[in-house]
Amino acid sequence: MSIKILTIKEDILSANEEKAKANRELMDKNHILMLNITSSPGAGKTSLIMQIIDRFKPNTRIAVIEGDVASSVDANKIGQQDIPVIQINTVGACRLDANMVRKALDNLTLEETDLVLIENVGNLICTAEFSIGEHKRVMLLSVPEGDDKPYKYPLMFTESDAVLINKIDVLPYFDFNVDNFSKAVKGLNPAASIFPVSAKTGEGMEPWFSWLEKSSTSSTI
Amino acid sequence: MSIKILTIKEDILSANEEKAKANRELMDKNHILMLNITSSPGAGKTSLIMQIIDRFKPNTRIAVIEGDVASSVDANKIGQQDIPVIQINTVGACRLDANMVRKALDNLTLEETDLVLIENVGNLICTAEFSIGEHKRVMLLSVPEGDDKPYKYPLMFTESDAVLINKIDVLPYFDFNVDNFSKAVKGLNPAASIFPVSAKTGEGMEPWFSWLEKSSTSSTI
Repeated sequence: MSIKILTIKEDILSANEEKAKANRELMDKNHILMLNITSSPGAGKTSLIMQIIDRFKPNTRIAVIEGDVASSVDANKIGQQDIPVIQINTVGACRLDANMVRKALDNLTLEETDLVLIENVGNLICTAEFSIGEHKRVMLLSVPEGDDKPYKYPLMFTESDAVLINKIDVLPYFDFNVDNFSKAVKGLNPAASIFPVSAKTGEGMEPWFSWLEKSSTSSTI
Repeated sequence: MSIKILTIKEDILSANEEKAKANRELMDKNHILMLNITSSPGAGKTSLIMQIIDRFKPNTRIAVIEGDVASSVDANKIGQQDIPVIQINTVGACRLDANMVRKALDNLTLEETDLVLIENVGNLICTAEFSIGEHKRVMLLSVPEGDDKPYKYPLMFTESDAVLINKIDVLPYFDFNVDNFSKAVKGLNPAASIFPVSAKTGEGMEPWFSWLEKSSTSSTI
């Protein structure tokens, strides 16, 4: 039984990779930078998106795609910023896939968009396996989750271009060693850029914003 | 394609349900209480298990099964308590299933066990769908994750017998409304018992321990 499932999974992943590639080509054609933002539940993805909107909205046309198992709590929050927001409810699936994202992209006016921020489902496992066509994968790991997470969820850290240590404003109240965590991440993924930030207070945001600007080779952000 | 996947998923779930039932019967035959402990990554499952061990070890023969995608960080921690610990590495799967748990149970001396504590993979989605044969499903939601999680991950809350609000020692530093959260949980699952606790400081543990003792109808804890 398990071998059968594995085969199906490989088929799904391979079909997904094709669709992800098509999404990326669509973004490149329209000079759009697309980010896939992942984390555990409650680690601060929506707050990070709000920070990006605050910083870049004056000069950048931003659209947001929200992935959730259920509800539109986050989409409603972001919708107040007067930018296009598409909510995907995955109806039980633990991650977005390239096909779901394509349907959302088809509902955006791409020629009037510079930056697409995609908030994936809150999960450190399934989201690591599925590309959605992003240029950069950005993960948040929040201080209260603990500094041992790279050992427990290695693929997530291996697959991310940037790792944001979020909620550094509460560092004094938790046993979280930033150096040990950073070493563990670098051990898995030497190319990863690591940014300690607080998406709540704005602390540490500037280096991360600079990284984001540099990531934008074809778009106008 | 999506309909095909759904059918396979139903087959898997139905086969799992059979195996879960067999696990439960095996526990009942041996007068063992079995708990399925779930949460997001880093919400405090291992700390809760350590609290249960501290409180019940003098009079109760406890065994622990640890589920992780990778590593044995938690099993090593718990192994220092001089009780049997079985580590299951799911190799990418985002939840334990009844079959994995059965293999672990086969490595325990059941006639010398009163309480089996199973730490599921850190995840609020996949773990909700798979019974492993537990008598009680216990979930932790930690304060830093936010009080909106019942809306986003409803199945997890619907399927849990007890919901522990963990990390109440850091309530002053987060926007978490215990009343609003509890109302949202009760809206989804009126029968759920809710316990605000700190598995770190031990605060609030006694009511939860009492609930646990009452849950034990056939075992000797």
